[in-house]
Amino acid sequence: MRANRQIVLAARPRGLPRHEDFRLAEAPMPAPADGEVLMRHDWLGLAPAARLRMDEAGSYSAPMALGDVVYGQAIGTVLESRHPDFKVGDMAMAMRGGWQCFSALRGGDLVKIDPQLAPPPAWLGPLGTSGLAAYIGLLEHGRPKSGETVVVSAAAGAVGSVVGQVARIQGCRVVGIAGGEDKCRAAVDEFGFDACVDHRDPGLPQALARACPDGIDVSFENAGGASRDAVWRLMARGGRIVVCGLISEYNAPEATGPGWYRLLTQRLQIRGYITSDHLDLRPAFERDMARWWAEGRIRMREDVSQGLASAPAAFIGMLLGHNRGKVLVSLAPDHASAA
Amino acid sequence: MRANRQIVLAARPRGLPRHEDFRLAEAPMPAPADGEVLMRHDWLGLAPAARLRMDEAGSYSAPMALGDVVYGQAIGTVLESRHPDFKVGDMAMAMRGGWQCFSALRGGDLVKIDPQLAPPPAWLGPLGTSGLAAYIGLLEHGRPKSGETVVVSAAAGAVGSVVGQVARIQGCRVVGIAGGEDKCRAAVDEFGFDACVDHRDPGLPQALARACPDGIDVSFENAGGASRDAVWRLMARGGRIVVCGLISEYNAPEATGPGWYRLLTQRLQIRGYITSDHLDLRPAFERDMARWWAEGRIRMREDVSQGLASAPAAFIGMLLGHNRGKVLVSLAPDHASAA
Repeated sequence: MRANRQIVLAARPRGLPRHEDFRLAEAPMPAPADGEVLMRHDWLGLAPAARLRMDEAGSYSAPMALGDVVYGQAIGTVLESRHPDFKVGDMAMAMRGGWQCFSALRGGDLVKIDPQLAPPPAWLGPLGTSGLAAYIGLLEHGRPKSGETVVVSAAAGAVGSVVGQVARIQGCRVVGIAGGEDKCRAAVDEFGFDACVDHRDPGLPQALARACPDGIDVSFENAGGASRDAVWRLMARGGRIVVCGLISEYNAPEATGPGWYRLLTQRLQIRGYITSDHLDLRPAFERDMARWWAEGRIRMREDVSQGLASAPAAFIGMLLGHNRGKVLVSLAPDHASAA
Repeated sequence: MRANRQIVLAARPRGLPRHEDFRLAEAPMPAPADGEVLMRHDWLGLAPAARLRMDEAGSYSAPMALGDVVYGQAIGTVLESRHPDFKVGDMAMAMRGGWQCFSALRGGDLVKIDPQLAPPPAWLGPLGTSGLAAYIGLLEHGRPKSGETVVVSAAAGAVGSVVGQVARIQGCRVVGIAGGEDKCRAAVDEFGFDACVDHRDPGLPQALARACPDGIDVSFENAGGASRDAVWRLMARGGRIVVCGLISEYNAPEATGPGWYRLLTQRLQIRGYITSDHLDLRPAFERDMARWWAEGRIRMREDVSQGLASAPAAFIGMLLGHNRGKVLVSLAPDHASAA
């Protein structure tokens, strides 16, 4: 019987995770129970929010236990099905597939994907949870109106890049904030942002003010820290701040944010949200995003690393902002070597 | 011709206003133009937000100019009417009556009051703008559900006391935060709060936690500072923070607020609002509050000072938290001496 290679949480990270916090393990090949599906993982999708589950205190979901397979999404191929909705050869996305080569999951925990509409990685990006997070945060909570100015932090990332493109579709002026020249250029050239400013630039507040001459109506906050504070000072009356993530703070949450005086005088709204609270919006998302994708209005940038063992380094690099686009791990090398 | 005594802004306060920032002045008795009404001011209603208009930068409305009559509400009696909706002897409330003994205002800037339903001071309190601020903030933005825990800062004040009583009417558990034993006792004994904790108590975070064993679902924020931060740590998942005022910060806005990590993990909503943005809700407010008042479910506490010249001291005392209830200035002594 073939083994199932996994990466498990070996220790709780303090601050930025280190390689020693992860361990490669082998488990028996899972056997699907009634109502379950055995899936070969072809791709893993890495997301910064997984860092939150590594803390003992937990955050918006139960923390991982030590020894657990690291939490993460996977796209894979059905090898064996004991669920009526899936047949051998189907492709599906598992929110909780985890960093491993195979999984046995209940059919209800899988979402079938259509590789004819878009290649599998896109189902971990704009057509998957990254896209859903962008869609819910921008449209449901940000409620941008045509002509408004939308600022997006982590603009070249998996979520931010979709937010910017959807905001453009809504007729907004879209300004990104990203780390470094390459990402800023990608936001403008690949994703169609009107402008993008570098959060590493000490002149960020001035650069952002120049890019937003009428102030900021909607801020899609993905970063926290200095860019959040620069946005704060430019929020226009009646502005909305949607807090999707605070990646710069996941390793050490900041004790203080901006003062609230401006919140009052500008009648601001701030809202933190978690995508999984809003799955009622999934059908609308799937309909809209599939159409936009088919129309070529949504693009994706991928940052692929090869092999399960590369996942910890890819994850750490993502938390440091070294990635270029959605961070994916291809498990093709693992399956080829096992064959 | 009788003169109109006024208090004008003599200098822009730096931090806490001083008596020298105000000056008693005399102007000619105003003459109502067509469409206007000449009103004798009987009562002034003081509110902390007037402090915001004394700064040059302004806040959510145009700043007062030096030499302007100080901004404030007034209740008065119509002496002469050139507007079809008002006749001599009517009583009315003027949002922008100002700290003076008489005013000539357009009919559209006056709200007629019914002294049969409630005595004139109540129309500067629960039935006036304080009540409207409470009503809009709590019901429109806080959206409390029966059984939820609502925390109200400045609990014994003009707005906070109404928030607490309306939250009780909605079936909520209501916990106040107020400065000192007298105010805490008033919140519980006079206004029916379930509990009230003292923001001067160094054990405030622990006391608030004991009073809110299930966390806080709705925070009506009127104070800022330490009590805001204690509330922050106790916000329950899906909680709403409504920012009506930040009285502790009006003299020196705080540069920093609490960090946003909790905003994300608890899916919080924060909203700053200004009552005058929501005048569409006034008819609903007038209907509900008049009924609750008539049913004896809403009480008011007044802190009356005598004579126009006492207004600056009453205003400064209010910013220091020395008042007991809604701060009113009776102008009866001024009118008696002029008669």
